[in-house]
Amino acid sequence: MNEGGLKTHIDNFGNLVGRLEGRDKSAPVLRIGSHIDSQPYGGRFDGVIGVIGGLEVAQTLHEKGVVPPVSIEVVAFCDEEGSRFNKGLFGVRGMHGRLEEDELQRKDQHGTTRKEALIEFGCDPNQFSKWEYKDEEIGAYLELHIEQGPVLEEKGQGVGIVTGISGPLWLTVELAGFAGHAGSVPMSMRQDALVGAAAIITTLNNIASQNIENPTVGTVGNIEVFPNSRNIIAEKVRFTIDLRDMDMERRNAYERDLRKAIGDICAEQGLTYTIKEDTNSEPRYCAKWIKDCMKEGAALMNISPPELMSGPFHDALVMSYVCDYGMIFVRSKDGISHNPKEYSSYEDIALGTELLYHTTEKVLEKL
Amino acid sequence: MNEGGLKTHIDNFGNLVGRLEGRDKSAPVLRIGSHIDSQPYGGRFDGVIGVIGGLEVAQTLHEKGVVPPVSIEVVAFCDEEGSRFNKGLFGVRGMHGRLEEDELQRKDQHGTTRKEALIEFGCDPNQFSKWEYKDEEIGAYLELHIEQGPVLEEKGQGVGIVTGISGPLWLTVELAGFAGHAGSVPMSMRQDALVGAAAIITTLNNIASQNIENPTVGTVGNIEVFPNSRNIIAEKVRFTIDLRDMDMERRNAYERDLRKAIGDICAEQGLTYTIKEDTNSEPRYCAKWIKDCMKEGAALMNISPPELMSGPFHDALVMSYVCDYGMIFVRSKDGISHNPKEYSSYEDIALGTELLYHTTEKVLEKL
Repeated sequence: MNEGGLKTHIDNFGNLVGRLEGRDKSAPVLRIGSHIDSQPYGGRFDGVIGVIGGLEVAQTLHEKGVVPPVSIEVVAFCDEEGSRFNKGLFGVRGMHGRLEEDELQRKDQHGTTRKEALIEFGCDPNQFSKWEYKDEEIGAYLELHIEQGPVLEEKGQGVGIVTGISGPLWLTVELAGFAGHAGSVPMSMRQDALVGAAAIITTLNNIASQNIENPTVGTVGNIEVFPNSRNIIAEKVRFTIDLRDMDMERRNAYERDLRKAIGDICAEQGLTYTIKEDTNSEPRYCAKWIKDCMKEGAALMNISPPELMSGPFHDALVMSYVCDYGMIFVRSKDGISHNPKEYSSYEDIALGTELLYHTTEKVLEKL
Repeated sequence: MNEGGLKTHIDNFGNLVGRLEGRDKSAPVLRIGSHIDSQPYGGRFDGVIGVIGGLEVAQTLHEKGVVPPVSIEVVAFCDEEGSRFNKGLFGVRGMHGRLEEDELQRKDQHGTTRKEALIEFGCDPNQFSKWEYKDEEIGAYLELHIEQGPVLEEKGQGVGIVTGISGPLWLTVELAGFAGHAGSVPMSMRQDALVGAAAIITTLNNIASQNIENPTVGTVGNIEVFPNSRNIIAEKVRFTIDLRDMDMERRNAYERDLRKAIGDICAEQGLTYTIKEDTNSEPRYCAKWIKDCMKEGAALMNISPPELMSGPFHDALVMSYVCDYGMIFVRSKDGISHNPKEYSSYEDIALGTELLYHTTEKVLEKL
């Protein structure tokens, strides 16, 4: 960063900030960022390309002798993934006064608290307020990131323009039936919780798939059966539901359909049920004017990146509450992420970085 | 048993045998039996009522001064449940030369072998052949047992006449799809192994339920999902299938339907699959002439016990390969078994024992 002409510091949240001063030093800044921490088993691209890409953009401007109208901050946010303390987006939330009470007391698997880890790293948790930003100090936020999904690969496109980050609805459903010997309870007398769960899994899949033009996704990824014995009818089944959409009204309608179906299926199978809401996040849309900047930038490159939503969250999710934001996705090989096999080609990363550069130029014109 | 007029011994398989000598001491015997071992957590009725019931029948005959035409053996078979060495029906198989090679080397959870346990109990595993029966030494076999299911309770009947023991078909199905982030893989691009499993569970349930007049039962009781994480699409699912019927031809046809459906569902969902056959047992029917004896006996009691099949196996399963057999079921409260809540009323047990008595009289007339 220093070589690239940026003035750097590490704040008390562990964020690394590099600043390219603009003509108006007091104007709201354009921030470009992502993270360099990872999941325990990788991969190498998730987050990193956004920090390096942002640095590349700032350095290029600097090397061209451009003094931007407002300052540009390139940020490597601390602990986006949350692997160590099981709660992510720490650095970006810290910078914007959005930490939760007692969060510093969270322990890692060795018993070290977040507070101790920050101090060990050289941060001063008693001086957080010194480094907090007011929302109005940020003009806009841009983030380059790998897609972590298969859409761009499917479309044969190296980069894409993100429409927003879909907020998940997370439910936990518990069904209770009646255990019995698999050989001795006639079909007509069964209260088989797994048969009920199967019908609900199918229903969720049908609801989310009913119009495949829409970005709706619905997933049951986790299921636990009791007693889970091959010759005993399942008495209890607990499973998760993950439902996401960019259209909150549609997602709410689908949730109503799903809840009604759960009630109907349980009535039909003689089951009782509970539904617990674990998370209910709203989708956070990218700013249209920033997407337009991206399209203008893409036109200069003679490419037409498709638009796509982001299922996973990013530092941009927190930034979306602070200022207008935009995101560029880079194609992920086989859609794989959080895995050593995670891969994006250097050509695609270069393409994404070039689009980030042109977008930055266009955004700077409008700040 | 001795008080009841029986001559007793414990054989080298651990079976307790009480013999009421008949007029023709060399004729094939009528055997009445069950077991007194249990599952780790009970219940108190499974097996035990058949041994006590058989003893009651023999003792009653003895006290009435009846000398039966052929000898009656009341047997408490050793280790029907198989809880300790994870392989059941030990005593009855031993008596009839149906042990498997190396079976004595099976270990319990403390490392004790079956052989060591037998020796500790006072048995001599080197003298097995001394206690083996030839099949032709047994004229018929009767067993009184709790139903372990809800049919008799549903019908409001204290006792029932068993039509046979349905042999299970046990399969293990493994589906392989492709993991991905629940938020970033569009529905149209998914290979969700759990969605495939749900469709198969529903299909099996529909196949087994298509004619509820039939005794067909189909169950998925055990399912394992990988990685089983709420925001990751299931990559692998392994689950068991238990399919039983009294009509082997119908069961085979249903198995063909199921296997075809598994292929179709996997093709539709983009999954690969394997099907492993773990067990393929044929149904073993009770002898019509013994069921007729039961009906005649029931007529004397002014009751009309319904016929029903047995899903679980019993010592009678092994006896079915030795001689003609019949079974009487006693109502189980709520259909519960292998559980401390297992319960049959003393009135129902008395009813079953009385039916066993009359059946014994009728069977003795025909041996």
